[in-house]
Amino acid sequence: MITLASDFGSPYPAAMKGVIRRHTDAELIDVAHDLPRGDPRAAAFWLRFVLPEFPPAVHCAVIDPGVGTDRDALVVRAGAHVIVAPDNGLAMPPARALAADESDVEAWTVAVDDPASETFHGRDVFAPAAARIRAALDEVSETSNGSPDADAVAETLAAMDDLTPASDPVDVRFPEPTVERDDGGDEAAGGEDGDGDVIAVDGEVLAIDRFGNVITNVPGELVRGRDWIRVNGDLTPVAETFGAVDPGERLVTVGSHGYAECDVNDGRGDGAFDLRPGDSVRFVPDSVSL
Amino acid sequence: MITLASDFGSPYPAAMKGVIRRHTDAELIDVAHDLPRGDPRAAAFWLRFVLPEFPPAVHCAVIDPGVGTDRDALVVRAGAHVIVAPDNGLAMPPARALAADESDVEAWTVAVDDPASETFHGRDVFAPAAARIRAALDEVSETSNGSPDADAVAETLAAMDDLTPASDPVDVRFPEPTVERDDGGDEAAGGEDGDGDVIAVDGEVLAIDRFGNVITNVPGELVRGRDWIRVNGDLTPVAETFGAVDPGERLVTVGSHGYAECDVNDGRGDGAFDLRPGDSVRFVPDSVSL
Amino acid sequence: MITLASDFGSPYPAAMKGVIRRHTDAELIDVAHDLPRGDPRAAAFWLRFVLPEFPPAVHCAVIDPGVGTDRDALVVRAGAHVIVAPDNGLAMPPARALAADESDVEAWTVAVDDPASETFHGRDVFAPAAARIRAALDEVSETSNGSPDADAVAETLAAMDDLTPASDPVDVRFPEPTVERDDGGDEAAGGEDGDGDVIAVDGEVLAIDRFGNVITNVPGELVRGRDWIRVNGDLTPVAETFGAVDPGERLVTVGSHGYAECDVNDGRGDGAFDLRPGDSVRFVPDSVSL
Repeated sequence: MITLASDFGSPYPAAMKGVIRRHTDAELIDVAHDLPRGDPRAAAFWLRFVLPEFPPAVHCAVIDPGVGTDRDALVVRAGAHVIVAPDNGLAMPPARALAADESDVEAWTVAVDDPASETFHGRDVFAPAAARIRAALDEVSETSNGSPDADAVAETLAAMDDLTPASDPVDVRFPEPTVERDDGGDEAAGGEDGDGDVIAVDGEVLAIDRFGNVITNVPGELVRGRDWIRVNGDLTPVAETFGAVDPGERLVTVGSHGYAECDVNDGRGDGAFDLRPGDSVRFVPDSVSL
Repeated sequence: MITLASDFGSPYPAAMKGVIRRHTDAELIDVAHDLPRGDPRAAAFWLRFVLPEFPPAVHCAVIDPGVGTDRDALVVRAGAHVIVAPDNGLAMPPARALAADESDVEAWTVAVDDPASETFHGRDVFAPAAARIRAALDEVSETSNGSPDADAVAETLAAMDDLTPASDPVDVRFPEPTVERDDGGDEAAGGEDGDGDVIAVDGEVLAIDRFGNVITNVPGELVRGRDWIRVNGDLTPVAETFGAVDPGERLVTVGSHGYAECDVNDGRGDGAFDLRPGDSVRFVPDSVSL
Repeated sequence: MITLASDFGSPYPAAMKGVIRRHTDAELIDVAHDLPRGDPRAAAFWLRFVLPEFPPAVHCAVIDPGVGTDRDALVVRAGAHVIVAPDNGLAMPPARALAADESDVEAWTVAVDDPASETFHGRDVFAPAAARIRAALDEVSETSNGSPDADAVAETLAAMDDLTPASDPVDVRFPEPTVERDDGGDEAAGGEDGDGDVIAVDGEVLAIDRFGNVITNVPGELVRGRDWIRVNGDLTPVAETFGAVDPGERLVTVGSHGYAECDVNDGRGDGAFDLRPGDSVRFVPDSVSL
């Protein structure tokens, strides 16, 4: 299996599929081709969310604002998964999500010899690299179109002539929210829990989905179970489901990725909360019962 | 084969495909992922139109405004087809279209044990249910990725531990137009034909497609063969093909689903006729030759 | 393999896939279903670009503004590839690109007996024709879902009862730019090169892609290697890559199809250059160093 993700719209991804079909009959599954244009960080967010649902596969992800410049073409192994992508950071967050631990992630650069174009490496560099890797893995796999185990994947990649170990691939790290507690201790959300009650969380908008749901970096457990919360000052109900509020009403919920979302039932949260990717969002718990 | 339909846009359907691939290698075919948001009735209309083109398959359809509420997860057998969907009515019209007769439709609810999220049952409930059913059917099928016959499908579903017969699944019924005849008898279009000539048909807009074609619930035979018809008062040519009128001109035609459509050649009928889903539309035959 | 291209959006292509699955299990790959509406010339441009990336396949392409009129349904063999499409010109440019030479292109019309609709021949005519041809080719192919060689494809098509040789299929020819040289000789770009230096090229916009890149008919070699060029009077840098100019800045580059493009890094060229398909575009080389 090869999954494909890009910001190419159509029909460019079909050109990549044609190229792949010259190398392998492996199944092709589209992840998305309307990812935010030229935004490796947004792509990293969505791939970190989607790719771990798949069994081991080769993932070809091309969000490539630097196409034709000297940025490298990267191959990242994460457990038995392989990501093929430009070296601009988009590969590393999903790789960490796919691997059992960070020591199970390793990266190579792909030799790129005189591609046919300087503007469509999806077709001329990444698709053929993904196809060749897929074909090599299929040779050592015991099941048709399945992947061998992580060790065999590592061995297979290490034996490929056109791969060179990459010492320092570009990485994207998502910001962690800051949690303020009533015993005075500020902390990063990811750290040891403080003793005091949470009095504020300062987070950031990571992404907006097609429904206009505003996905923040605030872990769901900081909002789950509350009745009301202030979002940048505005009192908002917290609910497990969209249907808990009337159509058109705002709510804070925990999305399927585990983060707090600012949403509107049957409407758009980005408009109602006036939030865009990268914006700051401050959650202040409020126990007022209206 | 598993077909997939939703209002999820991207990349959410890819998460469903990843989950399915952990259970089965069955072929995946997208029906649409841009169905009108949160609108089970519109989904029912389109699925009733598209699914009968397929040979027997498992169809996973997730338009789910009530996600996380206590609405059931439904499995509907229609002949040798199986639809997996939330119990909000979207499954029943396509099920009736897929079955030879209504007695060949039966429904179950799927036990849902503590899904991973309350907001993405496409991934956490419906995709795994469809995959498990597909895998179970493949075991009793004699052809790879084909479906067994209706009796074997019924037996297989009846034997699955996590399915419980559903006594009263939510249903959607599309409105029937009213036909007025010159002998004074009003009638429902679906009933016995009157003797008199049709002098008016009061229908409703069922859906708008990507071209802006306005699909009504008025059976094509009530307009076919006429030269002109008044649509909410405006005299409009009736034609078999778009090309029969000049680009930009309005026409009434019979769409591929068999209903009368209000269209514009190389333009948008919804704008030109000012019609939206649910709007009333009155057709009055007119024999004026201009 | 059957590739599918249309301007149908969704869910209409799924109806075509359902019909195909009643005839053959051949792999289905979407080229695009959002091609410019009712525009066979635009479709011809994109298919000429994408289809040659594929190994031999059956390509079903339905951009069909004349659906239901007396335009023929066409089958075109180009080497070992087969294109099934309405006879409106869209098939011939990609056919020439797929064939080794023009003598390796031949066309048939498909007998169309009373299709189920007059408005959706994608489902009722082209999909079943593509499926029957695919099934016939698979019977003579030695590999599963592969295509036999060009001779065997030609023989297979010639033996099909419902195909009749087409003497004069509709064709689309893209305009050639005019090149003006300083020795006074104007010429078509495709002809013998003049001796003088190029002082102006008068071309045309062929297409706009999802990024807003303006694709012209001017061969890349007429701009490649220059530093600056005037585009309809405005001095614009020529660059190999988007990243060579700042975000939001205009550039002329050579696209992956080999033509000169008028683009904006991380922005839209169609807006910045005020160009639409069919517009004239005049390139004047300029050696000014700013």
